[in-house]
Amino acid sequence: MAKIELAHGGGGRQTQELISRFFHHYLDDPEIRKLDDGAVIGDQVFSTDSYVVKPLFFPGGDIGKLAVCGTANDLAVMGAEPQFLSLGFIIEAGFDVADLGRILCSIRAAARRIGVRIVTGDTKVVEKGKADGLFINSSGIGRIRFPGGNRLGMDRMSEGDRIIVSGPLGCHGIAVWLARNEFRLQSRVVSDVAPLWPLIRSLLDFPITFMRDPTRGGLAQVLNEMASGGRHIGIEIDERQIPVSAAVRTVCDMLGFDPLVLANEGRVVVVVADAAAEAVLQTMRRHPLGRQARLIGRIVRGHPGGRVALRTTLGTERIIMPPVGELLPRIC
Amino acid sequence: MAKIELAHGGGGRQTQELISRFFHHYLDDPEIRKLDDGAVIGDQVFSTDSYVVKPLFFPGGDIGKLAVCGTANDLAVMGAEPQFLSLGFIIEAGFDVADLGRILCSIRAAARRIGVRIVTGDTKVVEKGKADGLFINSSGIGRIRFPGGNRLGMDRMSEGDRIIVSGPLGCHGIAVWLARNEFRLQSRVVSDVAPLWPLIRSLLDFPITFMRDPTRGGLAQVLNEMASGGRHIGIEIDERQIPVSAAVRTVCDMLGFDPLVLANEGRVVVVVADAAAEAVLQTMRRHPLGRQARLIGRIVRGHPGGRVALRTTLGTERIIMPPVGELLPRIC
Repeated sequence: MAKIELAHGGGGRQTQELISRFFHHYLDDPEIRKLDDGAVIGDQVFSTDSYVVKPLFFPGGDIGKLAVCGTANDLAVMGAEPQFLSLGFIIEAGFDVADLGRILCSIRAAARRIGVRIVTGDTKVVEKGKADGLFINSSGIGRIRFPGGNRLGMDRMSEGDRIIVSGPLGCHGIAVWLARNEFRLQSRVVSDVAPLWPLIRSLLDFPITFMRDPTRGGLAQVLNEMASGGRHIGIEIDERQIPVSAAVRTVCDMLGFDPLVLANEGRVVVVVADAAAEAVLQTMRRHPLGRQARLIGRIVRGHPGGRVALRTTLGTERIIMPPVGELLPRIC
Repeated sequence: MAKIELAHGGGGRQTQELISRFFHHYLDDPEIRKLDDGAVIGDQVFSTDSYVVKPLFFPGGDIGKLAVCGTANDLAVMGAEPQFLSLGFIIEAGFDVADLGRILCSIRAAARRIGVRIVTGDTKVVEKGKADGLFINSSGIGRIRFPGGNRLGMDRMSEGDRIIVSGPLGCHGIAVWLARNEFRLQSRVVSDVAPLWPLIRSLLDFPITFMRDPTRGGLAQVLNEMASGGRHIGIEIDERQIPVSAAVRTVCDMLGFDPLVLANEGRVVVVVADAAAEAVLQTMRRHPLGRQARLIGRIVRGHPGGRVALRTTLGTERIIMPPVGELLPRIC
């Protein structure tokens, strides 16, 4: 590895390697090494994400909505109520002020919907040709709301736990990708970008052991991180239960994409003790964002660095590997 | 204003206009409207800054040291001990991994020197030509350490308070600017980039009313923000007392720069009650970063939106206006 490549930002295996083999050589704080979506500081969670999505506007959202929801969701899946956000804008000279206004509008709308306060910010401008319109960083602080100081974590998952996904997969990845219009495909796919806290808040009283939003690298990445991050576990998934909309499946079939590696920005994977799984599923389904929630699999006995097995619709079994390569770059 | 221009990122009047007339139209949280270097949340301060400095390496530092010191300093001037930092990297494909390693090295060194923990991060990669090597966002959380919950603020400054600057001005701006090598000027100017908390910590027991680090827009910008943000005050500065190194003055004279608008990344402007000013000055001078600290002026009676008057070396008076235009772009 002599040069950074696009694949290092794809969220799959190369991203993990860059972070765990290279960044962690220099940055060795125990919190940063956990590879969670944020750091736990007392009863707070602190998280950061930069957004470089291309194009800036896409069906269902824009970079502003994404910047608010994405960081708020990182807090939410750590069990924290999003409270405070910062915004850092890097703007290319020549950027249209009207477009900036539209983006600020959706930032405001998304923040109000979640009830998060945008309390501090920064603006930098670089010369024309030195950025791609607009990049936004948002960092966030949330307060952990799980009762009794219950901490979520991969190390808390155990054999028999059930795995739930909150809704159809791949809408965000496909919507952004089609908005680039490189293939001039018509489709009704709309990004799923949405704030997860209102849904997650309704689950606080259940024996949930782990949550994660399947963004870059999709469900395949999250399941593989779970299998290798958990203690002597493996994962079994039932392909028939994985929710994918007909529109997303059509585009995937045409272009050879795998819905399991597509990015989502308003979906959550929930791991919960078997006995409570049905109740969690029903609770999620009563929420607009969880109406199509499905039980997709379970934690099984495994070994360190366990694997993810998919029971296919044909009844055969295949191993889901961590996604590799560029995938769809700049999806968030 | 139809397009964003470089001047909107310069830290001077256009930046203030973009923020206060445009951003604040959409983002109206009381904390963000204060135009402080960070938001006060209970006994914490939360701050963010993106770094787009060009070139990435310059005499005295690099973008990594800048990203750690800059955000930590924003916390420090709010009276908060820097505790936790996040880092968000936006990397252009093709970036040299060895350079990234050097930058991570100085990030680690700066964080250790301050005692701040880097607890969370994010990495995005964009295509070649869509960024300029590397941009870094750092956001930080600090804990307010002034005794008795004393809050610093422009509204706390009053007539008679003295103004101290901690060291010679303009080194950072000149060092970065010369490192671009556009004028092939030889100079020994080294950036002042440094963490201010160790110096500021020694001042906690004094009746300080306001602090600010004069970064983009330099001392001229900070003094004008003070004059317009304070309550019915004006500011008088004695030009003879403003510390500027001979090397910086030489470059300024050759190129027509004004040291008062140059960026600093390791200097602080301190406003303190008159009775304690001499003690604060002596305390600062015992610290390596404050050895050349100087009393440069005072808060005088004024009017809302007061002005900054400079008593020149010739005995005449001139008004220091907020800096305007592009100044030196991408200095941080």
